[in-house]
Amino acid sequence: MRRFFVEEKNIRENKVTIKGDEARHIAQVLRLKEKDKIKIFTGKGKEYLTEIIQSSKKEVIGKILEESRLDTEPPIEITLVQGIPKSDKMDFIVQKVTELGVKKIIPVITQRTVVKLNEEKSRARRNRWQRIALEAAKQSGRAIIPAVKEVISFIQALDNLNRESLNLIPWEEETSTSLKQVLKRHTSHIPHSTSHITVFIGPEGGFTSEEVEAAKEKGAIPVSLGPRLLRTETAGLVTLTVILYELGDMG
Amino acid sequence: MRRFFVEEKNIRENKVTIKGDEARHIAQVLRLKEKDKIKIFTGKGKEYLTEIIQSSKKEVIGKILEESRLDTEPPIEITLVQGIPKSDKMDFIVQKVTELGVKKIIPVITQRTVVKLNEEKSRARRNRWQRIALEAAKQSGRAIIPAVKEVISFIQALDNLNRESLNLIPWEEETSTSLKQVLKRHTSHIPHSTSHITVFIGPEGGFTSEEVEAAKEKGAIPVSLGPRLLRTETAGLVTLTVILYELGDMG
Repeated sequence: MRRFFVEEKNIRENKVTIKGDEARHIAQVLRLKEKDKIKIFTGKGKEYLTEIIQSSKKEVIGKILEESRLDTEPPIEITLVQGIPKSDKMDFIVQKVTELGVKKIIPVITQRTVVKLNEEKSRARRNRWQRIALEAAKQSGRAIIPAVKEVISFIQALDNLNRESLNLIPWEEETSTSLKQVLKRHTSHIPHSTSHITVFIGPEGGFTSEEVEAAKEKGAIPVSLGPRLLRTETAGLVTLTVILYELGDMG
Repeated sequence: MRRFFVEEKNIRENKVTIKGDEARHIAQVLRLKEKDKIKIFTGKGKEYLTEIIQSSKKEVIGKILEESRLDTEPPIEITLVQGIPKSDKMDFIVQKVTELGVKKIIPVITQRTVVKLNEEKSRARRNRWQRIALEAAKQSGRAIIPAVKEVISFIQALDNLNRESLNLIPWEEETSTSLKQVLKRHTSHIPHSTSHITVFIGPEGGFTSEEVEAAKEKGAIPVSLGPRLLRTETAGLVTLTVILYELGDMG
């Protein structure tokens, strides 16, 4: 059954009102009409089995038949701080890490970021990435929609760092500490329920040594992902998969 | 330093001869010439530090300065049997699993495969995927080039199955056995050095129950990848990452 997103405020007394893009999609593209059933989610952890009682491309109204809690969120909160890569690779990264289970994405400008973004472009890109996250969250059955934050500099991201979080920075020049070692150490110390992990991934060419040093000063741990070189759009996926496998609900 | 692929037969008495696409790339695109240094790999586990002594777009000749064994291959051999997905998703899958460390890729036609491939198209696609694997192997520092096999049917792939291999088929309807459980069981039984794992991934829409049943009859184990739905191009990546993390050299 198809899933659609609505904001919580559009649900009242067992009725849901869907407007905008989602309404047009339901009524015009999918041609769903009265008596058809759909699933609604609010991005706040709940899902509603809903029967359409009125359908037009401007507004779809549904009657909620059943409410359920969605149990698809990982027990661990992961923030991805991603150096913005070239072309449309960021689209891909946002889509994939949303599927995997990321909680928050912070796009950052690093020393080796090539893309130039003025304020207007940054805003447009962020909106686009947030839409991609919404679509991927719908498709993959997420209970929440990961937040794509404003584009900031890598240094600002370090300044905002959550001190309670485990902060990991995969780095190809790191040879002594592996991600596995750090995660195994982590599991033996901190209860899963309180875990928050931040992962830093550089753009093409990676982070500079200077950036890695700055991250270390803020308490981030440089880790190795193994002997093969991973592209920027692969490194985040791999790190998230491994974290969710070791500490979360994956696999 | 740039890495280039040559077949072993083109190395003789400390000299390497590079022809075709790679020669054109070196001489014409990168404009490398006499005295420039490059790395050569043969896809058989060795790498050669080489100085160019003659460079033209038809033929580049190099003198080998140093030979080394490349230690970038995982201790476990993974074969990916991938249901061919729509559009260019297979290109992406081949590139990514090569980076991760796959040994062999078998593209298969399943009941839900939409793409129609006649013999000629199959051959062209396979050549294209093999080239993508070569490029990804060069970039990621692989010692070998994963083999992309001929397109066959899913049933043929099951018939050819290596009985010594651990055969895993991720399936969204599997709820009792997780990939993690199977891998933990596996590590306690079989020494790593002899390990071979085959992973079956369906196209969009996944495998049919009938296909999963046929795979089970051949000894494959259906496994769950967790509560979130992964797209076909994500499922293989995640499964390979987890296997290489748990039994291999990743992370």
